[in-house]
Amino acid sequence: EMNDIKLMKPVKNVLVIIADDAGFETQVYNNTVCRTENLNKLAERSTVFTNAFTSVSSCSPSRSVIMSGLPIHQNGMYGLHHDVHHFNSFDGVRSLPMILQQNGIRTGIIGKKHVGPEAVYPFDFAHTEENNKILQVGRNITLIKHLVREFLNHNKSSPFFLYIGFHDPHRCGHTQPQYGTFCEKFGNGDPGMGKIDDWTPRYYKPEEVVVPYFIQDTPAAREDIAAQYATISRLDQGVGLILDELAAAGHDKDTLVMYTSDNGIPFPTGRTNFYDPGIREPFFISSPQHPESWGKVNDGLVSHVDIVPTILDWYGLSYPHYKILKGHTHPEVKLTGNSLLSLIKDHSASADAVFTSHNLHEVTMYYPMRAVRTKQYKLIHNLNYKMPFPIDQDFYLAPSFQDILNHTKQGKPTQWFKTLKEYYYREQWELYDLIADPKETKNLAYIRDYQPIYKELSERLNRWQNATDDAWICAPSSVLENAGYYKTNPICMGMDNDLF
Amino acid sequence: EMNDIKLMKPVKNVLVIIADDAGFETQVYNNTVCRTENLNKLAERSTVFTNAFTSVSSCSPSRSVIMSGLPIHQNGMYGLHHDVHHFNSFDGVRSLPMILQQNGIRTGIIGKKHVGPEAVYPFDFAHTEENNKILQVGRNITLIKHLVREFLNHNKSSPFFLYIGFHDPHRCGHTQPQYGTFCEKFGNGDPGMGKIDDWTPRYYKPEEVVVPYFIQDTPAAREDIAAQYATISRLDQGVGLILDELAAAGHDKDTLVMYTSDNGIPFPTGRTNFYDPGIREPFFISSPQHPESWGKVNDGLVSHVDIVPTILDWYGLSYPHYKILKGHTHPEVKLTGNSLLSLIKDHSASADAVFTSHNLHEVTMYYPMRAVRTKQYKLIHNLNYKMPFPIDQDFYLAPSFQDILNHTKQGKPTQWFKTLKEYYYREQWELYDLIADPKETKNLAYIRDYQPIYKELSERLNRWQNATDDAWICAPSSVLENAGYYKTNPICMGMDNDLF
Ligand SMILES: [Ca+2]
Ligand SMILES: [Ca+2]
Ligand SMILES: [Mg+2]
Ligand SMILES: [Mg+2]
Repeated sequence: EMNDIKLMKPVKNVLVIIADDAGFETQVYNNTVCRTENLNKLAERSTVFTNAFTSVSSCSPSRSVIMSGLPIHQNGMYGLHHDVHHFNSFDGVRSLPMILQQNGIRTGIIGKKHVGPEAVYPFDFAHTEENNKILQVGRNITLIKHLVREFLNHNKSSPFFLYIGFHDPHRCGHTQPQYGTFCEKFGNGDPGMGKIDDWTPRYYKPEEVVVPYFIQDTPAAREDIAAQYATISRLDQGVGLILDELAAAGHDKDTLVMYTSDNGIPFPTGRTNFYDPGIREPFFISSPQHPESWGKVNDGLVSHVDIVPTILDWYGLSYPHYKILKGHTHPEVKLTGNSLLSLIKDHSASADAVFTSHNLHEVTMYYPMRAVRTKQYKLIHNLNYKMPFPIDQDFYLAPSFQDILNHTKQGKPTQWFKTLKEYYYREQWELYDLIADPKETKNLAYIRDYQPIYKELSERLNRWQNATDDAWICAPSSVLENAGYYKTNPICMGMDNDLF
Repeated sequence: EMNDIKLMKPVKNVLVIIADDAGFETQVYNNTVCRTENLNKLAERSTVFTNAFTSVSSCSPSRSVIMSGLPIHQNGMYGLHHDVHHFNSFDGVRSLPMILQQNGIRTGIIGKKHVGPEAVYPFDFAHTEENNKILQVGRNITLIKHLVREFLNHNKSSPFFLYIGFHDPHRCGHTQPQYGTFCEKFGNGDPGMGKIDDWTPRYYKPEEVVVPYFIQDTPAAREDIAAQYATISRLDQGVGLILDELAAAGHDKDTLVMYTSDNGIPFPTGRTNFYDPGIREPFFISSPQHPESWGKVNDGLVSHVDIVPTILDWYGLSYPHYKILKGHTHPEVKLTGNSLLSLIKDHSASADAVFTSHNLHEVTMYYPMRAVRTKQYKLIHNLNYKMPFPIDQDFYLAPSFQDILNHTKQGKPTQWFKTLKEYYYREQWELYDLIADPKETKNLAYIRDYQPIYKELSERLNRWQNATDDAWICAPSSVLENAGYYKTNPICMGMDNDLF
């Protein structure tokens, strides 16, 4: 009925695609070797961000930020969720899927979830590692295609939010070495490998791959990267299948699509680090409502904490007023991210800094870091800096890392841009000029000329930690007192432990 | 009916009383100043252990061990449960209250619970900090008395397990300074202090208290200890009220009673430490079935991990066969403690070692330690040893600690038996001969003559970590690999990070 049109809001849907440990292995970001026809095609209908950052370079923590809009110290997901690590967001967090569900939007998740508790991250439709094998639901793109179709075919009238967590291109040498270091053989049709019908594997020669500056250029590392590229071909074709399903269901014109990766690539200096290879992420936003934003490259600073505000803005919803933890010392929660819709519509100014926060990856890997990054500078605070930077089980066995470790043990050159000792032992504060020193090799934090910049950025970091209720705000040199006499006047009180 | 007697099992009940941060401030342990008539009376009907140890010197962690029989790395309660700390036992843990509930035993908890999740630690009757003010349910002994009466009056036919978590004599200067450093004025009838009807406060002069070797003998510390003693008078009278209720309900002849404290006293070298002042605990077991065990002193090594086996033995129940975490790498759970009933009955041999395991207290206080203690030796492994030993919010404000801190800052003598720097900075391994050096001041771990002892104890510690599925077994110098190629052959693989 024509009369009803005024009353009908346009249908608005969201599709978020999260790759697992992916980086810039795509022509979208000028890698001319690793071919990604489907990502390229999505990018053509997207604004592509070249200065997008994760809030934390670790799997569960990053996903908790993507889904809550809150840094890990504020949402409680201090480290990995599964098994012995056992981190969970606070019960009081109001996540994006929760808010959307409460607003009548149908929520679905396919693939890797890796966050909890269930009550904080509820989905109406869920096929994840919790009820499936992650190899299947995260890497079998034919299965993923069918699950997307099932979700889209169900209840066509209500708006939806669909979150797809690929497990590609995560390493698998640690857990399923029979499929190769990146599971690049899984489902390729070779004997014992199974067959993923929709995947046409594409393999690369070690000599043709692009070796980024932060990986040593050695045969072992090149072979490692070649395996990564092969797995990217499965991810890329999976993205294509999903977008085809979206179009087939008639939702390509009413669905905001985002593509990003949870954390840096699992190579030396990447995942778990706050150096750019650890935190800089591919990030596209494709808005069917804003064709003027398609094919644009945006170099504004954006962060995964912007995802929740962007999606709420898209749906026209506001963030609730509430507190996560009881007690007077905890402030009302405020999102610190921004909706990116205006940014893609009219290229308005982005934030002038992004912030990152890490506590642990595996539960044995305590290495809290806080950082602020502007276009020119990055200041990192390493709180457990006297101890060596920790290495996770998965990365330890990576051919690239074994290569560095073995050469170091044998006293031979590693061809890496830093030594293993430099990698393990970091100063408490690291300040880099990213324009003069994009590889982050010259720490300026203790150089006299840079003290004004250090001071400004450390104060800024402190204000952000305060605004986001960071329990680590006084560590490691002092104790936070915020109860009793100090309840209206929280204070860091020095321990006299020689750390400043 | 006489005929029914054969069929009736004797009723068997258990009452566990946990003091919060209590130590040996009682004549039971030869403190002649701090008067504790009610503990004395209980001790007369108990076996008193002089070598009893907590499994971990931190509140929630310790309570999780008391209630599960499993060390913290095995049950998942790596640190404090409440607020921003947010630690919980694994969902798969089968705790004592859960097992008892499943066996038809009515379970009750009054006072401080401080563990979670709820499904792992269920109680039929619960008045705790979760549904009450902890000051009331943990320190108001008149309220506690009425709650005990309510529990005992309900359903007199079924056997019961009642767990009482006093909050006394925990400090309160940090959160409720108006009641004094140990809440020693709370409920004393002074203006603004409220009145606890059943408490007759007993105050001490600073000059009369006993100063243990690990606290500096200064006016500030003596005043601190005097306040602690005053609060012990409330705890002691609370214990008396509970035992009177038990007798009034007719259960003094069928109830096994245990008294202990969760962790060491909140003084320098105490709580959060693995030195004896941190881990040695008061521990009495009063068995109405074994009057021959009354008034006995037992110097056998016993541990809080023995509490679950003892209570299961008392009820004639066995521990279930199960795994806590999924996956082939995790073994079936085996309790490592022993029932103490035979120990109190016939003085049979105790274990020849106890083990302790600590990860964090507050979530910012990462300082994993593992230790084994025999009658003669203690070996401590400090995993995060390059960083200073952390200080918690509550202890930081303690007059005794402020006294040391301020004197250290001013460069004046502290009268303490160690320096603050020594306290903060510990070697990776500490080995003490407790007979020659009961104050644990001479670290023998790096002395050549003690290498055989170091080797034997470190191997023993490693075997225990392996048997209890300790994720920290390879830290901090190597990475545990236990999946993929290593799934049937877990191995620690060196990081070459200069830590050994
Ligand atoms: Ca990841
Ligand atoms: Ca305690
Ligand atoms: Mg919780
Ligand atoms: Mg859980």
